Amino acid sequence: MADYQPQKSDKFTFGLWTIQNTGRDPFGEPTRGPMTGLDVIAELGKRNVYSYEMHVEDLIPVTSSASEAEQIIREAKKRMTDYDIKCTNCGSNVFGHPAFKDGALTSHDPRVRQYTMQRYLWAIDVAEQLGCKLCNLWWGRDGAEVDIAKDPMEAVKRLREGLNYLQAYIDKQGYKNFRLAMEPKPNEPRGDIYMPTAGHGLALIATLNKPDNCGIVLELAHTRMAGLNAYHEVAQVLEVGKLAGIHLNSQKPLRYDQDLRFGAEDLKEIFLVVKLLEDSKWPGTRSFDAHAYRTADREEVWDFVNGSMRTYLILREKVQRFNADAEIQGLLKDLCGTQQPLSSHDQLKASPISPDELTKKKLHHEKIDQLLQEVLMGVR
Amino acid sequence: MADYQPQKSDKFTFGLWTIQNTGRDPFGEPTRGPMTGLDVIAELGKRNVYSYEMHVEDLIPVTSSASEAEQIIREAKKRMTDYDIKCTNCGSNVFGHPAFKDGALTSHDPRVRQYTMQRYLWAIDVAEQLGCKLCNLWWGRDGAEVDIAKDPMEAVKRLREGLNYLQAYIDKQGYKNFRLAMEPKPNEPRGDIYMPTAGHGLALIATLNKPDNCGIVLELAHTRMAGLNAYHEVAQVLEVGKLAGIHLNSQKPLRYDQDLRFGAEDLKEIFLVVKLLEDSKWPGTRSFDAHAYRTADREEVWDFVNGSMRTYLILREKVQRFNADAEIQGLLKDLCGTQQPLSSHDQLKASPISPDELTKKKLHHEKIDQLLQEVLMGVR
Amino acid sequence: MADYQPQKSDKFTFGLWTIQNTGRDPFGEPTRGPMTGLDVIAELGKRNVYSYEMHVEDLIPVTSSASEAEQIIREAKKRMTDYDIKCTNCGSNVFGHPAFKDGALTSHDPRVRQYTMQRYLWAIDVAEQLGCKLCNLWWGRDGAEVDIAKDPMEAVKRLREGLNYLQAYIDKQGYKNFRLAMEPKPNEPRGDIYMPTAGHGLALIATLNKPDNCGIVLELAHTRMAGLNAYHEVAQVLEVGKLAGIHLNSQKPLRYDQDLRFGAEDLKEIFLVVKLLEDSKWPGTRSFDAHAYRTADREEVWDFVNGSMRTYLILREKVQRFNADAEIQGLLKDLCGTQQPLSSHDQLKASPISPDELTKKKLHHEKIDQLLQEVLMGVR
Amino acid sequence: MADYQPQKSDKFTFGLWTIQNTGRDPFGEPTRGPMTGLDVIAELGKRNVYSYEMHVEDLIPVTSSASEAEQIIREAKKRMTDYDIKCTNCGSNVFGHPAFKDGALTSHDPRVRQYTMQRYLWAIDVAEQLGCKLCNLWWGRDGAEVDIAKDPMEAVKRLREGLNYLQAYIDKQGYKNFRLAMEPKPNEPRGDIYMPTAGHGLALIATLNKPDNCGIVLELAHTRMAGLNAYHEVAQVLEVGKLAGIHLNSQKPLRYDQDLRFGAEDLKEIFLVVKLLEDSKWPGTRSFDAHAYRTADREEVWDFVNGSMRTYLILREKVQRFNADAEIQGLLKDLCGTQQPLSSHDQLKASPISPDELTKKKLHHEKIDQLLQEVLMGVR
Repeated sequence: MADYQPQKSDKFTFGLWTIQNTGRDPFGEPTRGPMTGLDVIAELGKRNVYSYEMHVEDLIPVTSSASEAEQIIREAKKRMTDYDIKCTNCGSNVFGHPAFKDGALTSHDPRVRQYTMQRYLWAIDVAEQLGCKLCNLWWGRDGAEVDIAKDPMEAVKRLREGLNYLQAYIDKQGYKNFRLAMEPKPNEPRGDIYMPTAGHGLALIATLNKPDNCGIVLELAHTRMAGLNAYHEVAQVLEVGKLAGIHLNSQKPLRYDQDLRFGAEDLKEIFLVVKLLEDSKWPGTRSFDAHAYRTADREEVWDFVNGSMRTYLILREKVQRFNADAEIQGLLKDLCGTQQPLSSHDQLKASPISPDELTKKKLHHEKIDQLLQEVLMGVR
Repeated sequence: MADYQPQKSDKFTFGLWTIQNTGRDPFGEPTRGPMTGLDVIAELGKRNVYSYEMHVEDLIPVTSSASEAEQIIREAKKRMTDYDIKCTNCGSNVFGHPAFKDGALTSHDPRVRQYTMQRYLWAIDVAEQLGCKLCNLWWGRDGAEVDIAKDPMEAVKRLREGLNYLQAYIDKQGYKNFRLAMEPKPNEPRGDIYMPTAGHGLALIATLNKPDNCGIVLELAHTRMAGLNAYHEVAQVLEVGKLAGIHLNSQKPLRYDQDLRFGAEDLKEIFLVVKLLEDSKWPGTRSFDAHAYRTADREEVWDFVNGSMRTYLILREKVQRFNADAEIQGLLKDLCGTQQPLSSHDQLKASPISPDELTKKKLHHEKIDQLLQEVLMGVR
Repeated sequence: MADYQPQKSDKFTFGLWTIQNTGRDPFGEPTRGPMTGLDVIAELGKRNVYSYEMHVEDLIPVTSSASEAEQIIREAKKRMTDYDIKCTNCGSNVFGHPAFKDGALTSHDPRVRQYTMQRYLWAIDVAEQLGCKLCNLWWGRDGAEVDIAKDPMEAVKRLREGLNYLQAYIDKQGYKNFRLAMEPKPNEPRGDIYMPTAGHGLALIATLNKPDNCGIVLELAHTRMAGLNAYHEVAQVLEVGKLAGIHLNSQKPLRYDQDLRFGAEDLKEIFLVVKLLEDSKWPGTRSFDAHAYRTADREEVWDFVNGSMRTYLILREKVQRFNADAEIQGLLKDLCGTQQPLSSHDQLKASPISPDELTKKKLHHEKIDQLLQEVLMGVR
Repeated sequence: MADYQPQKSDKFTFGLWTIQNTGRDPFGEPTRGPMTGLDVIAELGKRNVYSYEMHVEDLIPVTSSASEAEQIIREAKKRMTDYDIKCTNCGSNVFGHPAFKDGALTSHDPRVRQYTMQRYLWAIDVAEQLGCKLCNLWWGRDGAEVDIAKDPMEAVKRLREGLNYLQAYIDKQGYKNFRLAMEPKPNEPRGDIYMPTAGHGLALIATLNKPDNCGIVLELAHTRMAGLNAYHEVAQVLEVGKLAGIHLNSQKPLRYDQDLRFGAEDLKEIFLVVKLLEDSKWPGTRSFDAHAYRTADREEVWDFVNGSMRTYLILREKVQRFNADAEIQGLLKDLCGTQQPLSSHDQLKASPISPDELTKKKLHHEKIDQLLQEVLMGVR
């Protein structure tokens, strides 16, 4: 069997925060110690990880002086060179501080919105310094439990205003090829978050001043928290050329945010997502946004890292096997049949069709699905 | 207390199918007899219902000859006049016949897609004859259980192609002010349906040849089947001017499609939706898409009709009361504070903000939410 | 690789209804023709299926005369001999007829409850004639949408009364080793069904006159419709010796009842269930309660049958492989450590324990879970 | 209108932890300061709260010396007298410390299980000193994400062993009328928690050495996190006399644990629960287990407290109104009809019943449900 060792060319990515996670949760204290962003960069680089993502605050403590910040950036660049690892996404943590308790971009308080923008301008500047060309926004506090206290139409306007403001900054600064993205999530930490799915996000993007410069970072677990089909969501975003990034992880549907290791749940759905990414030759990084179980200690976090990458490589191999399976491909070909465009309206109306006739074609669904599962289980 | 009697001016609407429903379900036989579309039109009109919606097949059996169809349309017009009731939405049932078992617009079989378009052209023609200016598409069979057997990117393309084809027909025929709409639903009868939420629908519409001529018919229960917040979804659709219609009903979240009477569940969420429609003076019809419990007989179906309209009127009155409540409005005003635009980028970067300061403002959330619930319960 | 051909000794079972399913659903008409129970028995027997389950009405139309019924029973016995297939569960369909629209055992109407009991006595008599020793009750209509209209405490009493009444009949008739069972389901076709999970069912059974004679038939998809963990539910039922039967199938969590082929979803959870059944040497039949996709024709139903059995055999082999994997077993052994009973209360109070010390042990969770998934994917 | 002022006789209760909650969540830091248990006791007492519940650690820091602990207990008793407030439930926090990261009662490590029992013996001793006669166990860490790493049958045995061990201690100490209880929850903080619903809990209790001495504390939000019907769950627990306590709060179904103020969501379901408690004259305390929104400051926490109690009183009044409504009661009486016991088995078999006849009775469901909602909205 293959050894499934990651290579830089696999373009694997981890968020600094995924490694820094200390296992704290709403009911319990941390179970493992902290780790500096600098150390995470080095350790990921050593493991053949292609790049890292971050909130700027993951690397540079928000209380750092200007010179401290510069020092950290210098050191980060050095580690990036030493360990051949890039930065491919830099956003801002606008959810942790109590100032954001009722929202960042959509706060009623204009000072909070100003402060949010300050954080993002900082993130964009640091990104540019590190050669990173994407700033992804996760506005986890922009939502509500008390819906009557925030006008949801106003909220949409404020999200749009915020994105446009950042775009104008990028343009003003002349940051070349720099893109924005947003990452939808249905709920948690707010009762409901605005732009709960990739669909809602795409709809918002279509109304921006520069829609072509903003994409979606799609997190599989967020789709599953909404009980939706991740394969379908990724496909819709890909089809309109808006997949700015993908966060690979696992999650039991419709419960609290678990951020499980990619591959911990639902092999079929993630196989389909890998197939979509590989078959469409999507050029983006394969980023893992999850964290080790709270039961893992600092050292076992690397089992989580290794497992995530191994599972991707295993599934990628299965995609090749599936695509090469003559029986399966024959069934799919028969199912899809010969295509032809719709007739003209006049012709269409003039050509009666008997629906009963149309029901007779075999669709092979039971067979195809079974064969897929057998490929997945490695018995064909 | 008010009497909550519906008036034509309230613009209430029911789908013919909601009354025609016989109580059949996956595990049991019908519990009440059928009813012709013509009879439903008359009975609704008598009850001060403003208009009806339909699938053309609800009114005209698909097996009707041309002259039979004409006869039914004539009779429908007569009843519309006699009982002062309009037709405000006419789509097609492209889900009931086995021919559609693997999809209508997205079927692999080009003949099925042709047949689907035939049905919709028919619906559009009949709509125009009846003075109806909206054709809403619900593509409940366009989805999958066996995801590997249908390319979801291809599916998006086919949905787009279908909508564009219909729009071209409307243009070609010169049907004035005629609009299309689509109605998203996450699942059932398919494991997953393409365009599962209003967000995904808006995103698709943005890519049509004539996006301005296609809107969303948003069904509250479909939002709740996806576990999302209906208030937020309605707001996002309204904010971009795309609310072509609303289907008012109730549903326990995240289970099979219940289509419960508007008001049977979740008073707070539907109050918020009514508030949004009323405060924004949205001009559309208030359409009820649900059906009587399977335990109701043919006669008791009218209890369902009456209850739906009464609940809307009760909630509308509560919206007025809420808006007139000085204490509540004072709290909301204090919460929202004084607004001001974002500073220029340069100014923003030059004005440090202390986040700790920003956390001190009282947000009144517990109080506001409690007062809302007390308005809703009629104790203030 | 193994050929995964089912043998009678594998004790596979299908419900007659699973094959008879015609593909009708709430939004569409049947997509395949009917099939008599007698023919299903023969066809299953030929495919090395060990036994069948049924509602008595699946085999004997409820309108049959006494002599017609006898004739069918005679013929069923003949086919059972000819094709070496047993009957291992016989209940009654007390959900299809409109009489049951507001419940069978819990109907307000005493005549409906009487009629329900008539059906069950009939089922028990037929079961006994066919050598079947289990009558499983699925009371899918015993629930509510309008909760205020049925006292749920009264409902519990009526379910208890019904089960006791049937048990008294079994005793009176002297049917040896004849057992009752109930099959919990959270909802659909009712908004909520009484005894929604195996836990609730066990709790009810504990209050019966003869609790030892009543068990649970646990359907995996029903557990998943409640969003619960099927592995945990099966384990709790097994641990108290109450697993009267298991219905193997698949389901996307928290949506309408899909009854997908065993193995169509969630390989990890069903692997765990197979492991539990095999490791505990549970002697019951492995029964598949699902149906072919609605897109399958009458012939393709057998792909569903074959796939269900193959998947079980594949997973059973994987259980053996998992149990034989030295690295995995070593990690599990280290995790579980050396066991010892709790000290006496006095000793316990006298021996202070430092909790900080207890956190240091490695738990290997990331590693163990990854290795399990690799066994499942056939790469180790 | 009534003033809905709470009285001691209303028997309202809050957990100390509900007030102590600082607003920390998985994504953000505390938004309000801490508060000592002693201060909470006093403040609750002043507001006419009847009693408080606690984890012993909420009152006595786990690091306290014996004399410090005694001092706190003395002071607590004084405040209880001064402010006329009792303690009615005292458990232990066996979920916060990292030692419990893989479970307390079900940890693989026998030392963790010993330590868990030490904590509970301490809680029981303190309870007895404070005149509290209930120790409720919430074993939030007893569950799994990596199911293969913990045998769920073994887990059931360990939960049983733990409960039996505590019961033996109560007996040994001769603590009169002292009862145990357990509080089920489906998930969070573990992927799945053992005994996910009240049903599973009842089933476990039935297998204890002294089942009569252990009950269920049922939290509404936990039922809703499992997507189940809280009215049905409370009813089943009440019907077997096992309702040891109730935790009143609100929650959007099937998402992260929100612990919203009682009345923040789903008025109909909580009305039904209040009706059940009041109509059955259940003598227990009405305990609120929730917390103020994270957006509330320390002072606004009391809005949460006041709102919770007001909503209960409003709903209690509505129950009286509903019970006194002649039209509603007439419909319910007609629906329920005249009751009669099941005939003997022989008689039953000898009396054919025509099911078609049984379907004709009107069930008034649409009407009854509508009237209930109108009572709830205060328009009748």
